[in-house]
Amino acid sequence: MKQDTIAAIATAPGEAAIAVLRLSGEKAVSIADKLFVSPRLKSLQDAVAYHQYFGEIREGDALIDEVLLTVFKAPRSYTGEDVVEIACHGSLYIQEKILQLLMREGAVPAKAGEFTQRAYLNGKMDLSQAEAVADIIASRSKGAHRIAMNQMRGGFSALLKKLRSRLLDFASLLELELDFSEEDVEFADRKQFLSLIDQMIAEMERLIASFSLGNVIKNGIPVAIVGEPNVGKSTLLNALLNEERAIVSSIPGTTRDTVEDILQIGPYQFRFIDTAGLRQGAQTIEEMGIKRAFGKMEKAHIILAVFDSSKTSTSQFQTDFSDILAREDISLEGKYLLFVGNKKDLLNAPVPQDTGEVLYLSAKEKEAVENLKDRLLDFVRKENAAHQLIVNNLRHVEALQKSVEALQQAKEAFENALPEDLIAVDIRSALYHLGTITGEISSPEILQNIFGKFCIGK
Amino acid sequence: MKQDTIAAIATAPGEAAIAVLRLSGEKAVSIADKLFVSPRLKSLQDAVAYHQYFGEIREGDALIDEVLLTVFKAPRSYTGEDVVEIACHGSLYIQEKILQLLMREGAVPAKAGEFTQRAYLNGKMDLSQAEAVADIIASRSKGAHRIAMNQMRGGFSALLKKLRSRLLDFASLLELELDFSEEDVEFADRKQFLSLIDQMIAEMERLIASFSLGNVIKNGIPVAIVGEPNVGKSTLLNALLNEERAIVSSIPGTTRDTVEDILQIGPYQFRFIDTAGLRQGAQTIEEMGIKRAFGKMEKAHIILAVFDSSKTSTSQFQTDFSDILAREDISLEGKYLLFVGNKKDLLNAPVPQDTGEVLYLSAKEKEAVENLKDRLLDFVRKENAAHQLIVNNLRHVEALQKSVEALQQAKEAFENALPEDLIAVDIRSALYHLGTITGEISSPEILQNIFGKFCIGK
Repeated sequence: MKQDTIAAIATAPGEAAIAVLRLSGEKAVSIADKLFVSPRLKSLQDAVAYHQYFGEIREGDALIDEVLLTVFKAPRSYTGEDVVEIACHGSLYIQEKILQLLMREGAVPAKAGEFTQRAYLNGKMDLSQAEAVADIIASRSKGAHRIAMNQMRGGFSALLKKLRSRLLDFASLLELELDFSEEDVEFADRKQFLSLIDQMIAEMERLIASFSLGNVIKNGIPVAIVGEPNVGKSTLLNALLNEERAIVSSIPGTTRDTVEDILQIGPYQFRFIDTAGLRQGAQTIEEMGIKRAFGKMEKAHIILAVFDSSKTSTSQFQTDFSDILAREDISLEGKYLLFVGNKKDLLNAPVPQDTGEVLYLSAKEKEAVENLKDRLLDFVRKENAAHQLIVNNLRHVEALQKSVEALQQAKEAFENALPEDLIAVDIRSALYHLGTITGEISSPEILQNIFGKFCIGK
Repeated sequence: MKQDTIAAIATAPGEAAIAVLRLSGEKAVSIADKLFVSPRLKSLQDAVAYHQYFGEIREGDALIDEVLLTVFKAPRSYTGEDVVEIACHGSLYIQEKILQLLMREGAVPAKAGEFTQRAYLNGKMDLSQAEAVADIIASRSKGAHRIAMNQMRGGFSALLKKLRSRLLDFASLLELELDFSEEDVEFADRKQFLSLIDQMIAEMERLIASFSLGNVIKNGIPVAIVGEPNVGKSTLLNALLNEERAIVSSIPGTTRDTVEDILQIGPYQFRFIDTAGLRQGAQTIEEMGIKRAFGKMEKAHIILAVFDSSKTSTSQFQTDFSDILAREDISLEGKYLLFVGNKKDLLNAPVPQDTGEVLYLSAKEKEAVENLKDRLLDFVRKENAAHQLIVNNLRHVEALQKSVEALQQAKEAFENALPEDLIAVDIRSALYHLGTITGEISSPEILQNIFGKFCIGK
């Protein structure tokens, strides 16, 4: 099948000093050659690859722009095909005009993610690496960036390939036995196999467990600030916000996506969840059991239960809080619950010692707010350290879960001495699901689903 | 004076496939070298100029991004200094992070237009060419783009330099005479000088006259649609709008700058001016003389006087319209006034023939709307053809005007046989003002004023 040559504006939309257009496909060079005139090149076919040529984009006699043009020769290019990149003045007219001219000469508009899709189809990267490209572009914090970068560089793929190849080896032995089943030969070492399955399940479950963290790091770690009215929840948030802004906020154009209460602390973005529901009519902690607020708490990764330490004793608040959790049947398992005793500046008695569970501060006086940030960071860092590799993609975690299920069935079948061909089916299923992550196995629907979420030009 | 090495993100702000950062100055290469690691380069100092190197931007051990990096060696670069361009993934985090790392290694943030200002200061382009760079980036129509491109390529500068050098030759002769004034020598041919002045004044006045057109092409040609209520002004605008949209409208992010009624017709943008004032309480054309509406008409370059041809006779409307203009003391000199007889589909009598002054159409039935567009285009094209070079910059036109004034004074002084040293002062003044256009003469204030309007990264 002959592929179209695709073209797109690859830089962000808008007026700027520079914009870059990208062409990829068999005809990339010949299409660009029809528009590009350089004093130092008779034909673009003679261009030295990876060299930036200064020249003109012309429409007949009319000069459209002075540009820098680079040819990347297949397979040493992003897509693995011939690629041409044109850096022009970032005028809207010029960008659009050059794109139109490329179309006129035979290029077709690139679909979202089509350059990266081609890179995958041409074996330049596997599917999970391709997905990481989109995550890298979307990353707005060091933590999210690091996970995506690690994945793009193949850290995750390498582990999956290792797991898959071990399972594949074993599956081959098993299939061989099936071929010779009449003769009752045993090629596969049963004990070794069971231990392999256990190892694999353990490794995959570690990956699955990392998803909760990977996902929140990618999207901002949700923190619910809960508590009675007037205990200083908003003051606390403001005290945090005033000191540090998200790293991206100095770039114009990001504001539209930024909600008011995203906080960058160290390498992570924390996303504070509004629990305003607790304020309405709720006078005491016993009354605060509004389902809506608890729903939000359940979506959070971290819960800051704030109380007025000058009015309520810590142990009383902790008891009340547990009672409500029990009464409402709310489990905070896997979440980090920190009690925050606010208004310590108003305490008549000496401020109690901080413990692992409780921290005392004064949001208004900005006392010990730094300690709270350290606690949040420490918690995420500890979680992070528990995982060498972090999965941040729902598709991946679902495939891992299916693969684990299949392996558990295989194990059970073994233990119950079920026929080998049934076991083989489970193993093949586990292999299949692992293969969908890296794209050894894929379908047009999966690809459409993945690359459709990319930006144009990538 | 040692110049700082400056850095900026040169592509439009936002998430995208690619973003480009730019560094310029003595230390551009050494700064980039501290962050860039490429398997194919020991040191960036060894980089082949204009070659795109694939490599990594690192912060210590941490991989920030895989990038393409190009070194442009002075003086063969945009600024005339050493320039490094880094094309990275268009993640907000990565863009900002790399910029921060460049700062950490000694770069300073580039001010608006500073790259182009350096190009000017290093003799890569003159001042009017530098100004054209900003116009090119801001251009949103073919017409505006063409004027700016012609100016950036030096068409305007070349003419100015020719004029200035002729005047300079003559001024030298005149100054020589002053030196030898005791001896009553005449080096300069008076007659030739007067003819030179006349020629120069004529050429400069042609340029000045082109400004009105150049300015409206740059900013969109203002068209006022005037007329009584219910003659179909909005229907006419919609009929025009439905068929063609401004070329830039397919680029997301431009909408914020686009007002509802900008129309791209052929290579030009037309900017329709709201004359809603005419609708309020005005029942007949005699009553429509609302000052506000006339003020808007005076700002327009083209006036479409719309009437209902099924109800009002053309000659009657034309007479009424002139009467009102006379009564309100409004001059439409230099403007293009076209009478548009709408609703020709409702006419019982045969539709009259179009003339140079009147066009009949039906906005509702979209009949002959195309003819109106042709008329608008024809008018601008004819104006355009009258000017080889078009000035689109107020600063330039003001300098030309001052230069013309000085030459006229010189001429008068000559004719009145005033002393040569007075004439020399006028000639020097004319030379001075011409020199400010191309920047042979400039001041920090002028430069600040010009480049402060650029975007960052250019």
